[in-house]
Amino acid sequence: MFCWFNGEIMPYEMVGLKINDLAILRGYGMFDYFRTYQGKPFKWDWYWERFSNSAAKMGLDLPMSQAQTADVLTELYQLSRQPEVAFRFVVTGGYSPDSVAMATPNFAILVENLPKDNPQAYQNGLKVIPYEFVRFMPEVKTTNYFQMVLMEKELKAQNAQDLLFHQRGEISELTRSNFFIFKGDTLITSGTNILHGITRRVMLELAKSHFKVEIRPLMMAELETASEAFTTSTTKWAMPVTQVGDLTIGNGKPGKRTQLLYSLFERSTVG
Amino acid sequence: MFCWFNGEIMPYEMVGLKINDLAILRGYGMFDYFRTYQGKPFKWDWYWERFSNSAAKMGLDLPMSQAQTADVLTELYQLSRQPEVAFRFVVTGGYSPDSVAMATPNFAILVENLPKDNPQAYQNGLKVIPYEFVRFMPEVKTTNYFQMVLMEKELKAQNAQDLLFHQRGEISELTRSNFFIFKGDTLITSGTNILHGITRRVMLELAKSHFKVEIRPLMMAELETASEAFTTSTTKWAMPVTQVGDLTIGNGKPGKRTQLLYSLFERSTVG
Repeated sequence: MFCWFNGEIMPYEMVGLKINDLAILRGYGMFDYFRTYQGKPFKWDWYWERFSNSAAKMGLDLPMSQAQTADVLTELYQLSRQPEVAFRFVVTGGYSPDSVAMATPNFAILVENLPKDNPQAYQNGLKVIPYEFVRFMPEVKTTNYFQMVLMEKELKAQNAQDLLFHQRGEISELTRSNFFIFKGDTLITSGTNILHGITRRVMLELAKSHFKVEIRPLMMAELETASEAFTTSTTKWAMPVTQVGDLTIGNGKPGKRTQLLYSLFERSTVG
Repeated sequence: MFCWFNGEIMPYEMVGLKINDLAILRGYGMFDYFRTYQGKPFKWDWYWERFSNSAAKMGLDLPMSQAQTADVLTELYQLSRQPEVAFRFVVTGGYSPDSVAMATPNFAILVENLPKDNPQAYQNGLKVIPYEFVRFMPEVKTTNYFQMVLMEKELKAQNAQDLLFHQRGEISELTRSNFFIFKGDTLITSGTNILHGITRRVMLELAKSHFKVEIRPLMMAELETASEAFTTSTTKWAMPVTQVGDLTIGNGKPGKRTQLLYSLFERSTVG
């Protein structure tokens, strides 16, 4: 795969950072991730808005405008020779002279294959493990996913697929995706301490015409009376969550309302 | 400067990581930092103990024993042609195939020049800014120094040198160093939510014969009655802190007890 790095298109293996980059020495980096449908980046304006907001909040100057970046995406897509791809933006604090002060950001645009379909996950739903934590600056897509990597083996051992972050009883999100429940025909999701997912935004738009939508603090205790739960992300769309730790959600099977949202989302991706 | 990277000695500029390293994509990395006196790593056993504990808690396998690593340090020191150097260990989650699961860690040993002497800082003392935050797994020397980099410009604007982390009124540490106060002849420092500094450990040993030592929760409110405050680190030894936000500590000048500890520490570095 070809990638773009600091102004040049080059093979993926050649993209690397010197050891004094602040992403490596100080964990100071951010990213974004989105995909194409019919070869075009989906909701590109929204992803760009979130990405450039993250950069601004971290004090990182982006070297290209949205239009210039779109031209790079077009070129990389053509070079990929794939029908659909995912793009990953990575921006770092740069090569710091003193390992503290920011320097010129390093900016990479990576082309990636889409994750493999996982029909079994949609049939069974995910098991997630409650984990007390709130990300720092949750609205910024920093590269700090320490808890996810730390807990990866433990998740496998528990036959679980992700962590469900909560603090003082309040649910925020999964490690890389947003979280929703249904109570009957009411759809509930948190609006605070979360990364504002683009898929979440699309899903809330789609849900409005079919369900009552509540964006408000969602408590762990409410999981006991939830009829359905699911998570949304760029690649998962609406993925059922059927178990949270020892608790089974609803009847333990993917729910029909979640499946309706999945279908509505699928339809929205067709240009 | 020469460095060691994954088994080979090479020039510093050649040490780099491919973009899919988990330190870059997911902030999953750790490090340690120590220096020589008379050409020998100071308190090497203690630094190694902390370093290998950090690696174990993060599930990262180190490729070398303490003795093998010591041999590398000797070789790098000789190549440096400097009287004294600092060493930085950097260990990362490795080149992950899926950007989640750990792979073989990348391990770099960097030789660095010591920071320049800063006599004025010792004469004036540091100004620090209170910042509500506790590091995740504070006892592990992860690479997550996000707050420090984020706030660097703001610190400069406020003519301050560092952040003082606290939560619910309880002081933990500065971004890269431990924090102490004197109330008269009583030395007080927190023992929780901190990175257990090696300089802190040496200083507490040295202080015992001269002062009453209390290792206990240290509250922000206690700063108002502190006669002296200081911070300890590998390169700063005991550096006075004379201002915390708008609050002047004691008479606003470096205190004689802090200066005594500095002198005792200096003596301890002479073989």
